[in-house]
Parts: sequence; structure tokens; C-alpha cells
Amino acid sequence: MREALGLVVPGVLALAALSLVVLIWQGGAATPYSVVEPDASPRIDDSAPITPIPPAPVLDPLRVELGERLFHDPLLSRDGTVACSSCHDLASGGADRRALSLGTGNAPGRRNSPTVFNVGSHFAYFWDGRATSLEEQIDGPLHHPDEMASNWPALVQKLAAHKDYPGLFRTAYSRDIDPAAVADAIATFERSLVTPDSPFDRYLRGDEHAISNYAKEGYKRFVDFGCASCHQGVNVGGNMYQRFRVLSDYLPDRRENGSTDLGRFELSGREQDREVFKVPSLRNVALTAPYFHDGSVARLDQAVAAMARHQLGRELTEEDVALITSFLRSLTGQYGGEPLR
Amino acid sequence: MREALGLVVPGVLALAALSLVVLIWQGGAATPYSVVEPDASPRIDDSAPITPIPPAPVLDPLRVELGERLFHDPLLSRDGTVACSSCHDLASGGADRRALSLGTGNAPGRRNSPTVFNVGSHFAYFWDGRATSLEEQIDGPLHHPDEMASNWPALVQKLAAHKDYPGLFRTAYSRDIDPAAVADAIATFERSLVTPDSPFDRYLRGDEHAISNYAKEGYKRFVDFGCASCHQGVNVGGNMYQRFRVLSDYLPDRRENGSTDLGRFELSGREQDREVFKVPSLRNVALTAPYFHDGSVARLDQAVAAMARHQLGRELTEEDVALITSFLRSLTGQYGGEPLR
Repeated sequence: MREALGLVVPGVLALAALSLVVLIWQGGAATPYSVVEPDASPRIDDSAPITPIPPAPVLDPLRVELGERLFHDPLLSRDGTVACSSCHDLASGGADRRALSLGTGNAPGRRNSPTVFNVGSHFAYFWDGRATSLEEQIDGPLHHPDEMASNWPALVQKLAAHKDYPGLFRTAYSRDIDPAAVADAIATFERSLVTPDSPFDRYLRGDEHAISNYAKEGYKRFVDFGCASCHQGVNVGGNMYQRFRVLSDYLPDRRENGSTDLGRFELSGREQDREVFKVPSLRNVALTAPYFHDGSVARLDQAVAAMARHQLGRELTEEDVALITSFLRSLTGQYGGEPLR
Repeated sequence: MREALGLVVPGVLALAALSLVVLIWQGGAATPYSVVEPDASPRIDDSAPITPIPPAPVLDPLRVELGERLFHDPLLSRDGTVACSSCHDLASGGADRRALSLGTGNAPGRRNSPTVFNVGSHFAYFWDGRATSLEEQIDGPLHHPDEMASNWPALVQKLAAHKDYPGLFRTAYSRDIDPAAVADAIATFERSLVTPDSPFDRYLRGDEHAISNYAKEGYKRFVDFGCASCHQGVNVGGNMYQRFRVLSDYLPDRRENGSTDLGRFELSGREQDREVFKVPSLRNVALTAPYFHDGSVARLDQAVAAMARHQLGRELTEEDVALITSFLRSLTGQYGGEPLR
């Protein structure tokens, strides 16, 4: 609680100071309708539960480029068929649009692939948060028998025998290829995958016309109903764990027996971690269907209604769902100067 | 009923004749375990509700090639952003893996894009069957304001001004570009998109080891429970209309009010067509999630359970669902000599 207050109090002070600035500034304007350049405007609402995505961090371009190549290279997998981008396709919202990603032999895996966009500012990785850095995360898919089914010695050996990689690593890291450099390059590329300038971020920065009134009302309900108590911060999620008990209404038995995925309980064995998962980010959520850790919900409107019912105990009206969905669509950002699709 | 008998009686006679042939043939075999070459075997079960996909028809290769190019060319759309392949991506099971396809301005459309694979042998097109030939189908997306937003005169003019198309059409059709030639080329390419040699087809042709015992039991239940009364023939569907009343459990109000998509009723205005849709093909169904005309169901196991509950009034057990899903996975065929993914 003290920590929470520690965040809130400076926020309120900052807001008060900002309001004063705005009042003074407005007093000096010729008309109440002065055109304000969004970028020049200091009108970020510091009390808002969501903050705009800052520009991409400054990263070593040689490492980003090397990481980009590794990210797309199926050489990382034992049989040369699976790249990071197979399940995290930048042209598919940074994920793969499948309920459960396909592993070796086309068999579906166990959980839904999350998007790779904006992961640089998540607090943990995988649905159960079992990795706390991007570098550590790479260990998972690299070794998983249904994903890349490889290992570090095998990968380093393949990269060292490649016609381009040894030179690229020497240039970017001033040393021969080792696991740390591979992981660093991929993680550095991933940190470059930010999607700023969504309509909602432009709205937060003061451009009142960046989103529709429909989306504004959806945002209001998103906050009022309590969605923002978990989906907040720069990623509108991605910064805490919560119990998740949305059960698929369509699957027999599961409704009585509960999900077979126990989330963080599977790591810790602690009762309080049963069915506890990382709260996913809602950035670009309109592009990352299907939803939830088991990919069991196909459409964003269904996901909104299901979350409200199961997490908040609230039955939304069709209007609530449409408005909140409209707000969530305004969270689609830009990458490479183009809106994501 | 007479029509149904008309189908069943010859089937039974054919089966009896086949059994006799098999008995005679087995009598002459050296052991009861003789190895039979699948392709040489005459053991197709003529009474099976599903028949294997025949090889691709013989088509004019110049027209196929021209159609392939047109199919992938965003020039077909008014603003040059949308090709046929945008929603019917051959690398995504012939569809787009979205619940509802994205139109102009990224707004979701109204219905789920069906796969383009094997459409040459469907009896009608669109979820409501409003086109009865592939050539006629093209009119729909070409003109729809949320899809290509174009028209025939505009398209013919663009193609005629293109550096390659006039020559390609003259070679393939011995005449200048006209709408009929464009439609014929695209439809001819689409007729080439067949996916033979699925594991299940190899099983039907006599290769007992092509599918698992698990999938065989799933097939048995698929037939026993009545799924095959609508999903049958060469496409395991795609040859009749049926009323479809699966309502999304997650969407508020809809549960009471029914779907807002009235299917063929919207064309005919006849009460008996209310919520009547084309029965989709289940060929390659493991790759074409999400499911149903509204893309409301994310996973194949959910779709199986939902269809049984709503169409057949049967609550499947988790085992039933897993077995039938396993059978449906065996319907994934090959294209260009590789299994679809």
C-alpha cells in the first residue's frame, strides 16, 4: 500500500502542477480553440492508468540487425524448419494467429504464442512468467522438443560453420560466437520492436481527435469496470500476475473439472499460484487473436465479455462490449512508420 | 427419402460386390498379411461417406499461371492494397486465420473467410451460397466496398495499361482483356488448388497405417454420431445447406436474441432460409481456425463440441472430442508435394 501511495502521490502532484501549467498557458492563448501540436503538448494525463509507449530505445544497430537475422533464421531449430518468427511473425501482429502454435510434425502445442511487440518492457516472459529477461526467455523455445528442439552447443556450432555469422558476430561483439552473444543479439532486436503512436497514445498526448467518441466512452468503461486495475501501465498489462479462471464453455468436462493448465502452480507447487498467469499486454490486441493462454477465444468482443464475466463478475451489455472493443482497437500502434495490420 | 435410398442401395450393392472381390482375392493370397501397394489396391470403401480427393484436373497451364498472378495481385483492388490472397493466403490454409477478415481501414468484416483450397468441387460459394460458380464468386469481393472496392471497367482498364497483362492475356486467351477472361483465369487457378493425399485419403485408399487408431476411432464416432450426414462427399462438406444455430456463449444478449446473421434468409426472405448456411468443407480444417461463419470459435476441439451440442443435441465427452479432432487432423492434404501447414 505504501508503495502504491508512493506512485499515486507524485502522480497527483504532477497532475496538479500540469493543470496549473495548462491553465496559465490557456490564459495566454488567443482563443480557447488554439491548435496544439500533439508532440509539443505537455497534456499527458499523469493520473491515467495507461501511459503512451515511448520511442524505441537507442540500441546498437549492428546488434539489432544481427538479431533480426537470427530471429528469422530457421537454422536455430534442430531440423531447420522453425525460426523465432514462425510463431512470432511481425506481419501477424508479432504472433501467429493460431490458437496453439504448431510444433514439430504440425502437432499443436499447449499455449498460445504471445506477441513479440513491446516485450522489452514486460516484467516477465511466458504465460507463467518463468523467465524474467528476454535473454533467458530464448532458452525455452530453443530447447523445447516441440519447438526448436535444439541446444546451445549445437546452435553455436551451426552458426560458427555458417558463411556469414562468424563475421557478423565479430563485428557486432568483437568476439567469436557464444550463447551470450546470440541471446543478446536476439533480445536487442526484440527490444527494438516497439509500436508507438497508436491512436490511443496520440489521444493520451493531447490529440482529442485521435480516437472516436465511441472509443473514448469504451476507455471510460474499461477504467470504471476495473479492467484497468490489471491492464495498465505502458503495456496495458504485462506487469503482474493474476488468477485466471475463464473456462471454455464449449469444452466438455472442463467446465466441471477446471482447466488442465495450472499456470504458475506448475513451477512453484504453491496453492496460491494455481491457475495464476501473467496478465497479457493489450497493446495491438486487435491483431493478436485468438485470445487467452489456451487460445480458446476467437474474437476480441468475446474476450472482453468473458473477462468481465469471469474476472470481474460483471455481465456486460452488447453496448459495453462494442465500446470497450472500440477502445482496444485504438491501441494498435505503428511499426516501421506504418500501422500494424 | 427416395433420393436417400437411391444413394444408399447402389452403395450397399457396391460394398457387397467389393467384399466378394476382397474375399476372393484374400483366398488367393499366400498369407492373410500380404503387403498391398496402396496405389495398386482397389480397396476404396464405396460405402464410406467420404471419398478421396482425385488428382488436380487437367487445366490450361497458361491460364493457371495467369490466374495465379492475378490472384496475388493487389492491383485488383481500388487502392492497390488488397489481393485475393490477402484473405485467401495459400500459406495460411487458404484463408487468413482471422475471425473476420480485415477490410479497408482495418475494420473487421462480417464473416469469416473460407479456405480457397478445393473450392473447385464446392456446389456454391460464400457462406450463404449466393454464387454458384467460381467465376460468379469473383464479383463479390471485387465490388464489396470493404474488400476490393473496385469494378470490372476499372479493373480491365488497369490491366490493359499494365506492362505484362495484355501480352499474357493474348497468349492465354487469344484476345484482349475482358471480364470473362479475368474471371476465367482466376477460377482456373482456383480449380488447381486441390490438396490430395491427406493421411485420411491414403487410409481410404487402403493404407491402414496412414492414420492412427485414435483417428480411426474418431472417424467411426464422426459417422456414428451423425456428423457425416452433412459433412460428407469429396470435400467432407461443401455440398449442401443447413440451419446453423450455434450461438456464441460469450457474447451478451446474442444468447437471447439469436445471431444477427440470418444467412440465406437475407437473400431469399423465406422463413425456411433463416440462419441457413452452406455446410463448410472439413478438408484441411485443422489449418483454418477460427471456425464458423462468424469466426467465433477459436479451436477445433471447441468447434467439434459446439457442433455436436447445437446441431446434433449431443454432449460429447472429452474423449469423443479428442478422437474426432484427431480424425479431422488427418484430413490435412498436400499442395505442391508438401503437407499444408
